[in-house]
Amino acid sequence: MQQVVDFILEIDRLKGITRKTRPVGLDRYENSAEHSWQLALLAASMVPHAAEPVDLDRVIRMLLVHDIGEIEAGDAIFYAEEGVAERKAQEARAVTRIFGLLPDPEGAAMLALWQEFEEATTPEARFAHAADRAMPVLLNLANDGQSWRENGITYQQVVSRLEAPISSGAPALWTYLSVQLAARHEAGWFGIR
Amino acid sequence: MQQVVDFILEIDRLKGITRKTRPVGLDRYENSAEHSWQLALLAASMVPHAAEPVDLDRVIRMLLVHDIGEIEAGDAIFYAEEGVAERKAQEARAVTRIFGLLPDPEGAAMLALWQEFEEATTPEARFAHAADRAMPVLLNLANDGQSWRENGITYQQVVSRLEAPISSGAPALWTYLSVQLAARHEAGWFGIR
Repeated sequence: MQQVVDFILEIDRLKGITRKTRPVGLDRYENSAEHSWQLALLAASMVPHAAEPVDLDRVIRMLLVHDIGEIEAGDAIFYAEEGVAERKAQEARAVTRIFGLLPDPEGAAMLALWQEFEEATTPEARFAHAADRAMPVLLNLANDGQSWRENGITYQQVVSRLEAPISSGAPALWTYLSVQLAARHEAGWFGIR
Repeated sequence: MQQVVDFILEIDRLKGITRKTRPVGLDRYENSAEHSWQLALLAASMVPHAAEPVDLDRVIRMLLVHDIGEIEAGDAIFYAEEGVAERKAQEARAVTRIFGLLPDPEGAAMLALWQEFEEATTPEARFAHAADRAMPVLLNLANDGQSWRENGITYQQVVSRLEAPISSGAPALWTYLSVQLAARHEAGWFGIR
């Protein structure tokens, strides 16, 4: 039982990893723990829209652990292009250590789910990525484009980086978002860049 | 898709519902969204210690939705004894409305899981309750008894309110906690009350 306790207190640190988006109407940034919770429920809500049939329970478990590497590496905005390889290596070391706190098979199963998400080759992982990429867009659409404005993200960046991962996992979600994004672009949200 | 979006933005409000415990080392109270995430992983970590065989995936889905009624009712410390019936009724109205934002079967399935947790009669619900009751104890043990001190909770209150739900769902967890609690009581954490 002490191993379980050590693990659960270690992952408590994910509550202190802040992202670039804010919860709607709150004057703080969201953290990666509450983000993981919301993604799991986004996946459960939109499972009929998955590109292929998926095992929803594996998607949920994957989303619950997918950000745990940030405990050591921190969160980086998806549009960041520097230091990606180094951050990924740091995350891989972190999850090996953190999931290694647990006995097997629980620890090994969580590590395998984390790796499946990273590799993004199964239908479950692609659907999980679609949820992960879409959630900050949904918050931005409800928050006047807050994290895009604060970080100087352009309409073209959003579309070019998000279309493939979202439409590959949940095409109907990308159809929905692309209409919303184009309307916000028309309305001048992204400035004249 | 708009129904999914309306739902996911509505439950975003759970990130603004604060509890009485603090994440370890952080100078803020935790919220019910990140708490729900942590409970799901606590359940996944300690499933070999469940009192009876459980469907872990149902436990996880149950824990992800169990606090959503707090969006309208707020969080109340477990030791509060006033207004319980009124708060429960308010939570039941809230979840009917909120899960009703989703199409079925997704909305109906989440409502059924919320009700299963409330009724606490299945092995899955009892195990989920054990996780829910144990998590603030684990945080308090790591935080010098922070929420007990701040709210004047006695050792006797902790033991008398938590022993039944935790040992009914995860007896080995209660064995672990009871030793820790007795040691902290000996060390004077709870004052002379």
